[in-house]
Amino acid sequence: MQPRLKQQIDFLMEIDKLKHVYRQNLVANGSRRENDVEHSWHLGVMAVILQEYAAEPVDMAKVMKMVLLHDLVEIDAGDTFAYDPEAGLDKEERETAAADRLYGMLPSDQGQELRTLWDEFEARETPEAKFAACLDRLQPLLNNYHTAGGTWQTHGVSSGQVRKRMEPVGEGAPCLGDLAERLIQEAIAQGILQE
Amino acid sequence: MQPRLKQQIDFLMEIDKLKHVYRQNLVANGSRRENDVEHSWHLGVMAVILQEYAAEPVDMAKVMKMVLLHDLVEIDAGDTFAYDPEAGLDKEERETAAADRLYGMLPSDQGQELRTLWDEFEARETPEAKFAACLDRLQPLLNNYHTAGGTWQTHGVSSGQVRKRMEPVGEGAPCLGDLAERLIQEAIAQGILQE
Repeated sequence: MQPRLKQQIDFLMEIDKLKHVYRQNLVANGSRRENDVEHSWHLGVMAVILQEYAAEPVDMAKVMKMVLLHDLVEIDAGDTFAYDPEAGLDKEERETAAADRLYGMLPSDQGQELRTLWDEFEARETPEAKFAACLDRLQPLLNNYHTAGGTWQTHGVSSGQVRKRMEPVGEGAPCLGDLAERLIQEAIAQGILQE
Repeated sequence: MQPRLKQQIDFLMEIDKLKHVYRQNLVANGSRRENDVEHSWHLGVMAVILQEYAAEPVDMAKVMKMVLLHDLVEIDAGDTFAYDPEAGLDKEERETAAADRLYGMLPSDQGQELRTLWDEFEARETPEAKFAACLDRLQPLLNNYHTAGGTWQTHGVSSGQVRKRMEPVGEGAPCLGDLAERLIQEAIAQGILQE
């Protein structure tokens, strides 16, 4: 096999491991935890369906690449629970090392392109990165809301913590920020999220 | 919630069910069967990484939408094993009814756009549909090859059947067709695929 194609196939087999990285939140029927690949796929479809609400025009291919690959580093770094401040302390260090290894498996032009895209996602400054971050926050909110509070209940998360976590939703898409706030209020009213 | 946004969110929650539709093939470490969402995500990343081998230039956003949604109908119709001719008999009927219901949940402009895209994928005539079909066939070949024959062994599938099944790979990307043929030959040599 040509060396370039071999590097690409090796990378594609390596990233299969993301199917075994489980997140805290549940799938929508509440039967089990969701893995990173399922979360990422869901963001890809949300990007297509909710594009019209993006605060600024976005390049859809770029958004989709971003959301499909944004959690790839968790193959090495593991999933860091959003509401665990301790685990967040060395998150950047762990994820940077993971990005070096994983994107380093690709031919350098492709590895650099995707690494740059991940850095852009993390910096949350461009229209695409803001919209991707909006979806990344909104999806677990939808899942928690539809699973009687899900991880909010398991980990005793408060509405204040959720509101702070959801700030990027309104920044990426104001109308979806309003939706997030409405769901938080309904969750409090239903007693599945503590005030 | 605005009726349009409500339809979109209801659709996004409904498609969570695709995470529970299991395929015959295993994930790459052989520990369990793969679900449709994991398969679809993998195709999305393959589209990005292997784009340079497409037989004709492709619109990447279109390919990604196609591959992320190509199996959505299996929420209602179930996964039809590629090497089961009996199950294939009423596949089209079952999947058409599923497409009517699922895409019918969306606002009509979006539902029609995505339904048209699925029809285009199924017809396998445009550059994007040919490349998407190429990836859709290559991915389980890679997984079967890396899991000591996987479903080829479980279901006694022959190299002739696999070669026929892989024809769209070379049509969508000649270089990847060569790769598929080489993997088939290596699988035969290793005794994990019967001649």
